[in-house]
Amino acid sequence: MATMSASAAVPGRPRDPQVDRRIIQAALDVFGDGGWAGFAMETVARRAGVGKASLYLRWSTKEALLTDALAAGLVRVSDVDTGTLRGDMVELATQMLELYAGPSSRTALRLNLEAGTIPGVAEHYEAMRAAQVVAARAIVHRGIERGEVPATVSVTLLLDTLVGGAMMHALSTPPGKRAILTADTASHARRLVEFLMHAVTAPVGSGA
Amino acid sequence: MATMSASAAVPGRPRDPQVDRRIIQAALDVFGDGGWAGFAMETVARRAGVGKASLYLRWSTKEALLTDALAAGLVRVSDVDTGTLRGDMVELATQMLELYAGPSSRTALRLNLEAGTIPGVAEHYEAMRAAQVVAARAIVHRGIERGEVPATVSVTLLLDTLVGGAMMHALSTPPGKRAILTADTASHARRLVEFLMHAVTAPVGSGA
Repeated sequence: MATMSASAAVPGRPRDPQVDRRIIQAALDVFGDGGWAGFAMETVARRAGVGKASLYLRWSTKEALLTDALAAGLVRVSDVDTGTLRGDMVELATQMLELYAGPSSRTALRLNLEAGTIPGVAEHYEAMRAAQVVAARAIVHRGIERGEVPATVSVTLLLDTLVGGAMMHALSTPPGKRAILTADTASHARRLVEFLMHAVTAPVGSGA
Repeated sequence: MATMSASAAVPGRPRDPQVDRRIIQAALDVFGDGGWAGFAMETVARRAGVGKASLYLRWSTKEALLTDALAAGLVRVSDVDTGTLRGDMVELATQMLELYAGPSSRTALRLNLEAGTIPGVAEHYEAMRAAQVVAARAIVHRGIERGEVPATVSVTLLLDTLVGGAMMHALSTPPGKRAILTADTASHARRLVEFLMHAVTAPVGSGA
């Protein structure tokens, strides 16, 4: 158990981004383990190995801390822009595979379950989710503008099957085989993207 | 709060399947709300409106009750056999949409999160999950045998995108629009299946 760090509480001392990251990760872990019911500033501080004063210096409430942690813990859709639709889709699928096959899987699942019902957190979470959907749809629209897929493509079906297909693959990989998957998520992401790109670019009217 | 029902505890009295179903549904609801930490025989009995004796007559432990409830609450993959691959895929997707867009959504999410870690339940849950995967793969293999899809199809990618695509669509539908989706899950399921069937039956070598 960490003791209170006096120096961290000195006003005007510049914040250490390394400590911020450690606290955010601890917050995600604590939330993943015990949900909102088990989410306490003291537990997060202990997990991060910092004093409670360090935590309160940065976040005045546990709602604010969890909101920031969620923003950091979600897939970064808005940062994805590789220049091609295939590249962007591979990046999105890779992030989803890493999120749900790795140690963050329990936290991600608990977000889906609880985040929308926590007072003071739910509104931020819904806003983040909505922004993610807008950013993901923009990825496909850029692909349409560049002529990589026809304008008739169903943006919803393409994104549901990409993001959901990656999530389901990670969740249905048996625990004993997850290490193989996480060692090379990009390979599976590329196979998934080729499969889906064929659905939206192959000519209609053939097949069984 | 229900009082103890004396008659339900009389030995040899035939079990009422209606009561069984009510208990199973109550067990799923209680687990969805509070997880394993909030799962108690007394809470389930109260929710079902039956006496604790009725519960213990049927299930001697809460592990046994939750295991049976999980079996009933999961998608019934093994019962799906409409005679065509398209029909089977629409049925699977419809079940997933109903599971994740309806009132059972929280229970389903909590299963993903917790079921694998509850002592006395985890092994049954893993066995059920494995059986589901085998049954789902059999659906595609029957389609290959009937010549509905080429033998070169990726069974894994087709099922990941079908099941994951349906799950993601339900989860990303805003709460205010879920009623529209649940009123006609089959329409969306058919669109999803046509999208994916095109990926696996259209000729290769064309497209952007």
